[in-house]
Amino acid sequence: MATMKAIKKMRPGRGGLEMLNVPIPTPKPDEVLIKVKSVGICGTDFHIYSWDEWSQRRIKPPVIIGHEFVGEVVEIGANVGSKLSGKIYKGQRVSAEGHIVCDLCKFCRTGQGHICQETEIIGVDRDGCFAEYIAIPAANVWPVPDAIPNKYAAIFDPLGNAMNTVMAQPVAAKNVMITGAGAIGLFAIPIAKAMGAEQVIVMEPNPLKQELAGKVGADIILNPTDPELAKKVKDATFGYGPDVLLEMSGHPGALKTGLELLSKGGDCSLLGIPSNEVSLNLAELVIFKGIHLHGITGRKMYETWYQCQSFLLKTGNLIDPIITHHLKFDQFQEGFDLMEKSLAAKVVMDIG
Amino acid sequence: MATMKAIKKMRPGRGGLEMLNVPIPTPKPDEVLIKVKSVGICGTDFHIYSWDEWSQRRIKPPVIIGHEFVGEVVEIGANVGSKLSGKIYKGQRVSAEGHIVCDLCKFCRTGQGHICQETEIIGVDRDGCFAEYIAIPAANVWPVPDAIPNKYAAIFDPLGNAMNTVMAQPVAAKNVMITGAGAIGLFAIPIAKAMGAEQVIVMEPNPLKQELAGKVGADIILNPTDPELAKKVKDATFGYGPDVLLEMSGHPGALKTGLELLSKGGDCSLLGIPSNEVSLNLAELVIFKGIHLHGITGRKMYETWYQCQSFLLKTGNLIDPIITHHLKFDQFQEGFDLMEKSLAAKVVMDIG
Amino acid sequence: MATMKAIKKMRPGRGGLEMLNVPIPTPKPDEVLIKVKSVGICGTDFHIYSWDEWSQRRIKPPVIIGHEFVGEVVEIGANVGSKLSGKIYKGQRVSAEGHIVCDLCKFCRTGQGHICQETEIIGVDRDGCFAEYIAIPAANVWPVPDAIPNKYAAIFDPLGNAMNTVMAQPVAAKNVMITGAGAIGLFAIPIAKAMGAEQVIVMEPNPLKQELAGKVGADIILNPTDPELAKKVKDATFGYGPDVLLEMSGHPGALKTGLELLSKGGDCSLLGIPSNEVSLNLAELVIFKGIHLHGITGRKMYETWYQCQSFLLKTGNLIDPIITHHLKFDQFQEGFDLMEKSLAAKVVMDIG
Amino acid sequence: MATMKAIKKMRPGRGGLEMLNVPIPTPKPDEVLIKVKSVGICGTDFHIYSWDEWSQRRIKPPVIIGHEFVGEVVEIGANVGSKLSGKIYKGQRVSAEGHIVCDLCKFCRTGQGHICQETEIIGVDRDGCFAEYIAIPAANVWPVPDAIPNKYAAIFDPLGNAMNTVMAQPVAAKNVMITGAGAIGLFAIPIAKAMGAEQVIVMEPNPLKQELAGKVGADIILNPTDPELAKKVKDATFGYGPDVLLEMSGHPGALKTGLELLSKGGDCSLLGIPSNEVSLNLAELVIFKGIHLHGITGRKMYETWYQCQSFLLKTGNLIDPIITHHLKFDQFQEGFDLMEKSLAAKVVMDIG
Repeated sequence: MATMKAIKKMRPGRGGLEMLNVPIPTPKPDEVLIKVKSVGICGTDFHIYSWDEWSQRRIKPPVIIGHEFVGEVVEIGANVGSKLSGKIYKGQRVSAEGHIVCDLCKFCRTGQGHICQETEIIGVDRDGCFAEYIAIPAANVWPVPDAIPNKYAAIFDPLGNAMNTVMAQPVAAKNVMITGAGAIGLFAIPIAKAMGAEQVIVMEPNPLKQELAGKVGADIILNPTDPELAKKVKDATFGYGPDVLLEMSGHPGALKTGLELLSKGGDCSLLGIPSNEVSLNLAELVIFKGIHLHGITGRKMYETWYQCQSFLLKTGNLIDPIITHHLKFDQFQEGFDLMEKSLAAKVVMDIG
Repeated sequence: MATMKAIKKMRPGRGGLEMLNVPIPTPKPDEVLIKVKSVGICGTDFHIYSWDEWSQRRIKPPVIIGHEFVGEVVEIGANVGSKLSGKIYKGQRVSAEGHIVCDLCKFCRTGQGHICQETEIIGVDRDGCFAEYIAIPAANVWPVPDAIPNKYAAIFDPLGNAMNTVMAQPVAAKNVMITGAGAIGLFAIPIAKAMGAEQVIVMEPNPLKQELAGKVGADIILNPTDPELAKKVKDATFGYGPDVLLEMSGHPGALKTGLELLSKGGDCSLLGIPSNEVSLNLAELVIFKGIHLHGITGRKMYETWYQCQSFLLKTGNLIDPIITHHLKFDQFQEGFDLMEKSLAAKVVMDIG
Repeated sequence: MATMKAIKKMRPGRGGLEMLNVPIPTPKPDEVLIKVKSVGICGTDFHIYSWDEWSQRRIKPPVIIGHEFVGEVVEIGANVGSKLSGKIYKGQRVSAEGHIVCDLCKFCRTGQGHICQETEIIGVDRDGCFAEYIAIPAANVWPVPDAIPNKYAAIFDPLGNAMNTVMAQPVAAKNVMITGAGAIGLFAIPIAKAMGAEQVIVMEPNPLKQELAGKVGADIILNPTDPELAKKVKDATFGYGPDVLLEMSGHPGALKTGLELLSKGGDCSLLGIPSNEVSLNLAELVIFKGIHLHGITGRKMYETWYQCQSFLLKTGNLIDPIITHHLKFDQFQEGFDLMEKSLAAKVVMDIG
Repeated sequence: MATMKAIKKMRPGRGGLEMLNVPIPTPKPDEVLIKVKSVGICGTDFHIYSWDEWSQRRIKPPVIIGHEFVGEVVEIGANVGSKLSGKIYKGQRVSAEGHIVCDLCKFCRTGQGHICQETEIIGVDRDGCFAEYIAIPAANVWPVPDAIPNKYAAIFDPLGNAMNTVMAQPVAAKNVMITGAGAIGLFAIPIAKAMGAEQVIVMEPNPLKQELAGKVGADIILNPTDPELAKKVKDATFGYGPDVLLEMSGHPGALKTGLELLSKGGDCSLLGIPSNEVSLNLAELVIFKGIHLHGITGRKMYETWYQCQSFLLKTGNLIDPIITHHLKFDQFQEGFDLMEKSLAAKVVMDIG
């Protein structure tokens, strides 16, 4: 029986990632088998590694982790044939949406698969892509145009989180504030600019992330502890504050500061996950100001993917500074160590 | 000097409403003078009467209170002439928007006068309509079609709050849940039905309000303490929960329950004003569910007024049960007493 | 080999419908077999019968016609199992979307399957539902709630055309004009009212259709030749004209009249199919007025179906007058004769 | 009595523009007097000059022409005081919206002043800005930030036409096709790119305009007679065609070609004014494709102005190549001669 190398979370608790030889999966009739070329390490992978509360509730080890990847179709399930013929083929270079959805609930049937109530996620609920091969439903496959290199194609997924957050409200000719410049917050900077934002204002305390924010086009970069913060934001926006707030940190203080500064009538999209309940003065920060708050989860299937493809084709190289590290597959522990020390934004690993 | 009767808040502190003879106001060049026919008593009037925290911060007595009214134009300011000629005339029956806005800020210049940063409100920041006459800018005047009787025309304002909340998201072919059946929550019931809602589910503990909710068309009326609450809501909505939540109570528990029951991807409009900060599990209730929250304030100037007019022309009589009391002007104390005892929904008083 | 009765278009040319005994179809792995209970006769079926230009280009006889139906699942294909288990079951009462789409093009992948470029239609491009059994992809099946009787469930499809046209723009608190009161135009009347339209104005020359329009709730019914037409429409709309125009006739004159009357800034949805090119004064009728025109085709998959279900659950009986005839399967010729003579709006036939 | 130089259309018929000494206008109570610094020559000015059919119907000579300008406030009407105090001041550098609207109709009262039914246009219906001074309502004044130089501030108006056309539908991550690269079509190129368009495809036969299109960022420039036109557009758009069509030429053939190439479900905004009726196959080009057509007129008051300001602050210099000529006021005849020979895109003249 053919085997492959894979990184598996072997047991509950911190760490416990092992590179093992495991059987190559067999695609089900509606699936394809993909030889993985490059992958990205996500914050979620690190959460599983460090075994946070969410992981303790959700992950059932052992499981192959990883959900950001690009690869090549090597086998096609028996039922993929009819409708897909001529569109998915062996040798095709593809990425894939990692959320496997039911296709039958009201959300799936109305173009909102990203909030399907029966979602199964690769690398979380079933084996993922930190492996030489992965089997995944043909419906989840995303063919990658030649002009997009593997280093970008491997990270369609987190780029899509940023895209979905940016596109949750119009940003064209708007001032956008981003709180939190982790990898997804950083992606959101050049995306917001490319999608028409007039200025992107970033609030982030970490100097490395501040530096990266500047490299990818942030117009104004502010430290949350800056006593002049509010004045600087108002001065840059004719006194109105930003039109759009993208909350990428999950930090309650960032959300409050952001909502205070946000223009009346503005939009705030929430992607960062607060660890606990957040106490807000809804009357002053939301109701009287006529603010709109949007909870953001996953990527729109597949509108977000078309938007990411468009962005990468037009200006993909803008994200280069965010890919701080490019490792070999067997250097994975180094990748996790870098993330633990907050020394990396996005780590890409080559497998195939 | 000609005088008129008016109800004035004379001093800080609870009560202190007096009916006095005061000079009839003189309209400024861009204003008109209106002889008031009927008025509505708003929760805000009661807050000023009972001198709550908001009133203590905002109200500078003495001031004539009241902002919901219908009347007749009796005098037209000198500069109202040119553009308005032939459109505003003496004898015209009119209501008026009580928010006087700056016309010059970004919000006013983009059709969002309801969030103007320099709003002055009649009956709050300047003399209001609990009087035989009121002067108000011509731009705020709303001509009333003959087919709409005074009892409805007097309450365009609170009806507009309900309309603005309902119309903040599509309700056609949607299930709508309303938490809190005060006067505005009650208005929202027939409005939501008339605007296409499939079912309106009301959560309200007060038996009188529950009864009124039923009279104005609520499909399902539930007590927040009902142990079967969640089951009943799910059963009525194919298990998905309502598509739209209109929070009209300002009660944190109602908001939480509403958000728990709200469908993934749903819209929640917030009109009720919480007294304090509200602590929410944003991750579970908003972000992962892909919920949209909308802060609602005032009425869109003047889209909401057109919508209210349309509603009143089509099905105005649906709101009759909400006008629980119709008094004379000098019975005003009875009106406030009824509101204090929660025995009234909407009280209308005839003046002229 | 088991056989069934079916109505087949046997050859090019006018007429040529025969009720034959043909083999019961075998569902493919991703399909289900449905025992048909009731069907509706569509204008398209009549076009195929009368062999109009469109039919001559599109139809390849012999083919079983018909695409509006309700029935019962009697067999489930081998691959329908996994994801669908527990959701589609034998004995389930279902209708179905007749457009079979590719699932893979940009439109299908972004919730716009109704404009898939590789659509195959039952009763047109492959065997339809004027038969005792039909095989159709499981993805197209629409489970029908118990509260919706067969006579309505059989016509989800044309009701969906009307719904898609109405919902292409907001109608809540708007005045809506409908040009052409054929079956779909008639369905649009109670739908527009239920979705919040203030008034529905119908322009239609045929007295029978005018009468039906009145029975299903049209507020104003006008003959296109009425010399007072424009005045009556303006008088009913404060001089602005209707906010929304639903063109259901395909008649160039109706479109022109409708656009002339339509309010500046209004929306016009085009469902009726003109036989030839239409010559329009785009400058005066569209550009200077700031009009929006929407081409409407099919039903949104499956947003429109949820909306139709909601409408039928709330106020399905409003459409009763439109179902002018209810026949047995073997009376099908009578149905086509009625349509030919314009004596019927919607004809439903019971099969099973 | 103080006089000023002004360019006046003196009589019906071709030509007839004279530079005269005329009285400086006196602002009405709600107006301001502006000393004009720079102006742009619009296609409309040329139409008046050449006395086309539209001019013959609309213009009542003698009238000072011109409506694109920047200048300095030198006098403020008596009633401008109250609300505007501190916001409009002598010495302020301003441009202005040339459409003077009624403020009272449904459109004006709902943020749609651009389709007001009683619009009066400067330089068309009343004296314009080709003069040393112009009086205009204070409500129409647009204060210009210091960072925007006069050469751009003078042409807010035509830039606004382009902006309004681009922003009539989302362009972020979309492929946009523009038919017709006159001044407004040319402005639309960098605007569409700045607002997020992936690629801008221009169809234009004139070599000079083609060259300018390239200078301002068009990705693909095609000649309408190119036999490979359709293939090139399809190849650049994964076979789907552009998502958005901006028709800027008024040429029926351009509209037809554009609609043929436009993606199913796409948006088409119409700004170009056809001289005659246009004959279209609505069934094939609009209805079956699910296309949306938007008639575009003027600029949204004042959303479009904020968008233009944002664009000019962010990337104003992108439009430099479009300002092909910069003349003195008394060289105006040269400007009109250049436009007649199609040798100019946008001509700016300095006055003050």
